Amino acid sequence: MGILLSRLIHDWKPTATRPVYKSLYQYLRECIHSGEVVAGSIIPASRKLAVALSISRNTVNQAIEMLVSDGLLESRPGAGTFVSSGLDETVLKNARLIQEQDAKTPAISHRATEWLNVHRSKKVGLNAKAFAPGKPALDRFPFDIWARLLSRRWRLSGPSLAMAEDVKGYDLLRQHIARHLQASRGGQCDPDQIIITSGAQQGLDIIARVLWEEGDVIVTDDPSFPGISGVLSGAGVRQLTLPIDDEGICLEGLEQDHKIKSFLVTPSRNYPLGVSLSLARRMELLKTARAHEAWVVEDDFDCDFRFDGPPLSSLQSVDGDGRVIYVGTFSRILFPALRLGFIVAPKQLVPTFEAAKSFMDGHASIVHQAALADFFEEGYFHSHLRRMKKLYQTRRAFLVDWISRDLNDDLYVMPSDGGLHICVLFKQQRNDVTFAQKLAENGVIVRPLSPFYKREKKKFGLVMGFAGYDEEELVKALVIVKKYLNL
Amino acid sequence: MGILLSRLIHDWKPTATRPVYKSLYQYLRECIHSGEVVAGSIIPASRKLAVALSISRNTVNQAIEMLVSDGLLESRPGAGTFVSSGLDETVLKNARLIQEQDAKTPAISHRATEWLNVHRSKKVGLNAKAFAPGKPALDRFPFDIWARLLSRRWRLSGPSLAMAEDVKGYDLLRQHIARHLQASRGGQCDPDQIIITSGAQQGLDIIARVLWEEGDVIVTDDPSFPGISGVLSGAGVRQLTLPIDDEGICLEGLEQDHKIKSFLVTPSRNYPLGVSLSLARRMELLKTARAHEAWVVEDDFDCDFRFDGPPLSSLQSVDGDGRVIYVGTFSRILFPALRLGFIVAPKQLVPTFEAAKSFMDGHASIVHQAALADFFEEGYFHSHLRRMKKLYQTRRAFLVDWISRDLNDDLYVMPSDGGLHICVLFKQQRNDVTFAQKLAENGVIVRPLSPFYKREKKKFGLVMGFAGYDEEELVKALVIVKKYLNL
Repeated sequence: MGILLSRLIHDWKPTATRPVYKSLYQYLRECIHSGEVVAGSIIPASRKLAVALSISRNTVNQAIEMLVSDGLLESRPGAGTFVSSGLDETVLKNARLIQEQDAKTPAISHRATEWLNVHRSKKVGLNAKAFAPGKPALDRFPFDIWARLLSRRWRLSGPSLAMAEDVKGYDLLRQHIARHLQASRGGQCDPDQIIITSGAQQGLDIIARVLWEEGDVIVTDDPSFPGISGVLSGAGVRQLTLPIDDEGICLEGLEQDHKIKSFLVTPSRNYPLGVSLSLARRMELLKTARAHEAWVVEDDFDCDFRFDGPPLSSLQSVDGDGRVIYVGTFSRILFPALRLGFIVAPKQLVPTFEAAKSFMDGHASIVHQAALADFFEEGYFHSHLRRMKKLYQTRRAFLVDWISRDLNDDLYVMPSDGGLHICVLFKQQRNDVTFAQKLAENGVIVRPLSPFYKREKKKFGLVMGFAGYDEEELVKALVIVKKYLNL
Repeated sequence: MGILLSRLIHDWKPTATRPVYKSLYQYLRECIHSGEVVAGSIIPASRKLAVALSISRNTVNQAIEMLVSDGLLESRPGAGTFVSSGLDETVLKNARLIQEQDAKTPAISHRATEWLNVHRSKKVGLNAKAFAPGKPALDRFPFDIWARLLSRRWRLSGPSLAMAEDVKGYDLLRQHIARHLQASRGGQCDPDQIIITSGAQQGLDIIARVLWEEGDVIVTDDPSFPGISGVLSGAGVRQLTLPIDDEGICLEGLEQDHKIKSFLVTPSRNYPLGVSLSLARRMELLKTARAHEAWVVEDDFDCDFRFDGPPLSSLQSVDGDGRVIYVGTFSRILFPALRLGFIVAPKQLVPTFEAAKSFMDGHASIVHQAALADFFEEGYFHSHLRRMKKLYQTRRAFLVDWISRDLNDDLYVMPSDGGLHICVLFKQQRNDVTFAQKLAENGVIVRPLSPFYKREKKKFGLVMGFAGYDEEELVKALVIVKKYLNL
């Protein structure tokens, strides 16, 4: 009896977790790779193996065929099956070598190291509780309608949607977005200028990779959303932060000899402070960008929920230079996991954004785009937006009133004209990070304000989302906030 | 009568495409931006405007309120509404300036210029006809089942899916992928090592950005898929191509002093040639990578459709170094527009890939991931794969037989053990690019082979997809190919 057969009989057993032929295949493969069964060894006849191992001959043959496919065994007609002679000693030694532990791999890239270092608040996702920001009122979203639209699209046009490869995005959706922007933001845009992205985050990333070189200087708000630092790290650029006052970003600190490649700003509303850029500052920003021959990236993540009137005009709508690139998202109007956003690009940049998108991930999910187009087409988008605007306005008023009444000694509510959260400042000196931790231990989520700042001159306070929580949830959480403020 | 009122009466008209108040708002806004109506000008009373323009007073008020919101008008209690004095002459001049034509913007990035230059076959998408490659047999895909799975997920767990933010991907799907890889490819992998991506293209892009610095040298197959060059251009790395012979990539040309950062290879099957990497070469590749202390990226886009036996073991499954990063896709088994693929990463790299994914686009579409998990769970995945494997095997045999019988003087079919296309070489000298153009003009899509090569030593022939076309379609197209070969 050969070594192999004897090993098999004593050592091999079928496992419950995989088919018998796979288990046998795996075992034999290891014997060959490890060099225990050398090149040229004959494999016992399948009938013999089957009997010895009490398995079917068919099972043995399956395993043998797989090893032949792998090139580990070769069949010599009339003679039998052998461990391949093509596998000389060196090859097998390598196979063994490869399993030792002193393997060296290179370091990860510089940008990846930066990515690991970017501060990122812990995602709350499924367990979002008051006051986790960024959560829309999902219980009010018409999921039944959405499911119906998705399913209808698949039934009616599955095969064509399944092959659709429009890199720029689904045509009908781009038309609806253009119409929505024209109507709500004064934007002058053609559907051809729109590229659908996988959320605003990817919109910013595409822009970074198309417009910026490593080492370029990019001006941003301070404080700002950590996702922005992530994009900047990924592009290897330098972030020059300018402070936000009550009219938005202050360009005063900027000198003419700074070589600025882009301004990445949030004119509708700074995150997390909630301040909007005044009209005078908007004009100043465009003028400054022109003097620097710089691009302006308008991150308009939060424009649609303005309570004190209709949405402000976008920067993009007053730009006559082809200098402003606009980034929008549906995460807040519909829901975050939709992962749909868009870029409105100056016409000359469109082909380049399209190439970038195609090499970065092909295109965004077409069926969701088609369903979203139907959601617009059938009026659901605007009615949902209208209802949510009203709801969020009520919820914010409730929260602000409660704080003004019951927490007025401790908290100052930053003025803001909309959004899904408020930002409150501490009236007394307090460490917002430890305060937020304490609240988290008691089931209340607030984001501390100070970590959003890059510079030394930080403000201390809390970012409190209200949109996704009803009055009962808000009060429950507020009572806990009050308790810890008074400790 | 003031200038503004007189202009309005003579010049302004509501348009059919937008609400009247928006149109009035837009018009007034332009008057102010252009400087025709200067700071401090009084706006006629809303009643007067309404009468003069034959519109409702409410409409006028809406437009005025929007302009006040924008900061362009200000309301002085008791006195009326005026063009904001905060808008001094300079601001308005800037607003005008910005609309002139001598604006300068910087150049696009170096990598974006490269992207524009990468050869990319024209997408066929919706109009895919024989022999456009990459098209699965979509008419055999169970779209009704897919629609039902998607819609059930939304109905049962819409709100929680809508907030799901798992950057690595949906847990149940990652478990199924790990099981599938273990069973079919001998892969040893834990669901925790899997990151779901938006297609294989994004998988490669994430890897490029996490592992490579600008200027690094990356070894690839020659010929290769243009999407690979796109990824390399995006990362700013240098592409060192090695030729493919009948055992796969030839490492002979490589010298020890070449500083190689990564090998990006397609061991299951080279695209477009269809050659698989032999076992000996697999071992040699891992050994060489070890000597260079390099990463190995295994682009396994086409492993599941191997007709001559079970799928080959992956490189990842024989790697004991934590050196191989595996990239898979569902574009070919399900459908391209699904945009779901995955990375199997060595454990130490997982947190970095996760950070990269989060800053690049957040996460992949969760509802599709959940539906795909159900598609596995309920057995549809494996039965669809089995049926497609059989179907494609038959279709390939039909195509190859036809060519061998009727076009044997002109075409040589490259041997290949599977996939969705064949590669044929011209027996006589022929320009494949012009030949493909001629066929395209006659409604037959073939990809010319030579443009897939980077080096001078090209082969000339055609890449012909067969998976998505029935025998009737294949014959119809073959007859046209035959006609033009004989011209």
